[in-house]
Amino acid sequence: MAVAASVPHRAVVEHLVRQSVYSRLGKPLPHTATAPNPLVVNISARHCHLTPEAVEALFGRGHQLQVHKWLYQEGQFAAKESVTLIGPRSRVISNLRILGPCRSLNQIELAYTDAIALGFEIPLRASGNIQGTPGCMLMGPAGFFEMKDGVIRALRHVHMHPTDADFYGVKPGDNMKLKIGGDCGIVLEKMLCRVDKSFKLEVHIDTDEGNACNLQPDTACELIR
Amino acid sequence: MAVAASVPHRAVVEHLVRQSVYSRLGKPLPHTATAPNPLVVNISARHCHLTPEAVEALFGRGHQLQVHKWLYQEGQFAAKESVTLIGPRSRVISNLRILGPCRSLNQIELAYTDAIALGFEIPLRASGNIQGTPGCMLMGPAGFFEMKDGVIRALRHVHMHPTDADFYGVKPGDNMKLKIGGDCGIVLEKMLCRVDKSFKLEVHIDTDEGNACNLQPDTACELIR
Repeated sequence: MAVAASVPHRAVVEHLVRQSVYSRLGKPLPHTATAPNPLVVNISARHCHLTPEAVEALFGRGHQLQVHKWLYQEGQFAAKESVTLIGPRSRVISNLRILGPCRSLNQIELAYTDAIALGFEIPLRASGNIQGTPGCMLMGPAGFFEMKDGVIRALRHVHMHPTDADFYGVKPGDNMKLKIGGDCGIVLEKMLCRVDKSFKLEVHIDTDEGNACNLQPDTACELIR
Repeated sequence: MAVAASVPHRAVVEHLVRQSVYSRLGKPLPHTATAPNPLVVNISARHCHLTPEAVEALFGRGHQLQVHKWLYQEGQFAAKESVTLIGPRSRVISNLRILGPCRSLNQIELAYTDAIALGFEIPLRASGNIQGTPGCMLMGPAGFFEMKDGVIRALRHVHMHPTDADFYGVKPGDNMKLKIGGDCGIVLEKMLCRVDKSFKLEVHIDTDEGNACNLQPDTACELIR
């Protein structure tokens, strides 16, 4: 099956339209509309990142992850493949999505609601910092793969290009806040800034955070220093 | 089985100790410690409120709810009885807790995560305002009970005694904010103030909100006007 080119994110379209309308009206742009890039906020459902060795153990020798859907960050994708997670009390989560491409370590990112359902205590960690975290067993069509560690709740973070970091006046490792509007709006505090030339401006929150505030495609979001 | 008298809530003990320590040190109290009552924040897991007729249909003629655990609000309790909720796509939630005593209407309060698992769209409503909301089927040991409506996500709210409302300078129906600390702290905006002489100062948030910020018994919380 061919993978369709992705439609621009609603926030990208809105950002362009807003800039165009203000320009035609000859009015000065409001501050957020002067940002070099639109703010995209996406909910990351539970998922895993795997090494090539883990993919082979689970799906068979030489297996390569297939692209199900391209994500907003360049080159990142949700794979067609998913696995079954078996927790320490033999409770399972089926159809845990794998995100590609493969990485150099195995990591599973769950919401606390998922962890409670599995009967698991998981720590809050920045992605990649998995020392001393709990492990689990994964099951795929070709076999099992045991993770000694790597099950975490990912620390909230915002991906930024250096031009975004300049605009907001932050450095890598700084914290920002994200204000999410609506009838059950929230402010997420302590959002880690991750800055790289390959990044597009995007906040990743998990399903607990997204459901706490009922985040929808048209919900107003604002990054606050 | 006898129902043990409840241990004072941690927030109540802390409030008293804080007042006592400052008083012995001869120091002025910080503002929050001058509040007439401690701030208690509790997570309400999904639950239902039932009429006596619904209880009889589900548990048998003349059945009375039994107290499993007294809640912080005077006279309110988690019942020993629970029911099975059957959603519109025949997916179920087992062991849905009933809160007592019985009320004059049937209402089920779910988190959005629960509603998504059931394949359900539910509206955000203040408790009691259930017109036009979806219904569901309940199953108990003695039979079924169909709810035509009443499945909601409850609007965040704070129960206040009039002395609390005076202290914070709010009226019934006003909105306040709740700032929750910790490594994944959040600010919950639009928290409805419900004021009654029978109420003790208590915020109810749901499991999505509680898990978004990993609320623990020792997490610092602050009500902001």
